Amino acid sequence: MDIKKIADMISYKAEKLNKVSLFDTDNFFCDVYCFEPGQFQKVHSHDESDKTYYVLEGKGKVTVGSEEKELCAGEITIAPAGEDHGVVNHTDQRLVMLVFMAPKP
Amino acid sequence: MDIKKIADMISYKAEKLNKVSLFDTDNFFCDVYCFEPGQFQKVHSHDESDKTYYVLEGKGKVTVGSEEKELCAGEITIAPAGEDHGVVNHTDQRLVMLVFMAPKP
Repeated sequence: MDIKKIADMISYKAEKLNKVSLFDTDNFFCDVYCFEPGQFQKVHSHDESDKTYYVLEGKGKVTVGSEEKELCAGEITIAPAGEDHGVVNHTDQRLVMLVFMAPKP
Repeated sequence: MDIKKIADMISYKAEKLNKVSLFDTDNFFCDVYCFEPGQFQKVHSHDESDKTYYVLEGKGKVTVGSEEKELCAGEITIAPAGEDHGVVNHTDQRLVMLVFMAPKP
């Protein structure tokens, strides 16, 4: 049985957002995204896949479509298939997100 | 932009596990499962769908395949397609899980 303690999976890269894979199946991926202050995921889109962002620690500004809003720990949002989405850690604290996307692009 | 604060979504039913839908798309569902002490999700399986269980609060015993293990807050596991899986809140505290399944059965 594949149990992962997320606190043990968190790690950062100095140069960019670090995506740590938790589970990667034929149906979806589940990652932990670890952002140092100022790091970001560039706004992009997937034609077929929905993605959710759940904030585990910190705060970030999330874009979905034409909106950008601050997401705090304990909040979750969805980027539906075909909509632009991205994240920026605009704070001076680290940001950790649990991210699901299905189906895999 | 559809932002949900999970603390505001948590609610319980006296008679059984309460599944609160956060997002339900063509590709997956994302729920919060709220267990009072003693409540459970019966062991079952889905031929085609993978499911993840992430513990937000409390502890529970999770079955995947022939194994049963305790999962604590901050831990996540996966029930791959075709494998038996279920949860029981064996404690005297409430249990809250964030659950993803894709594709929808």
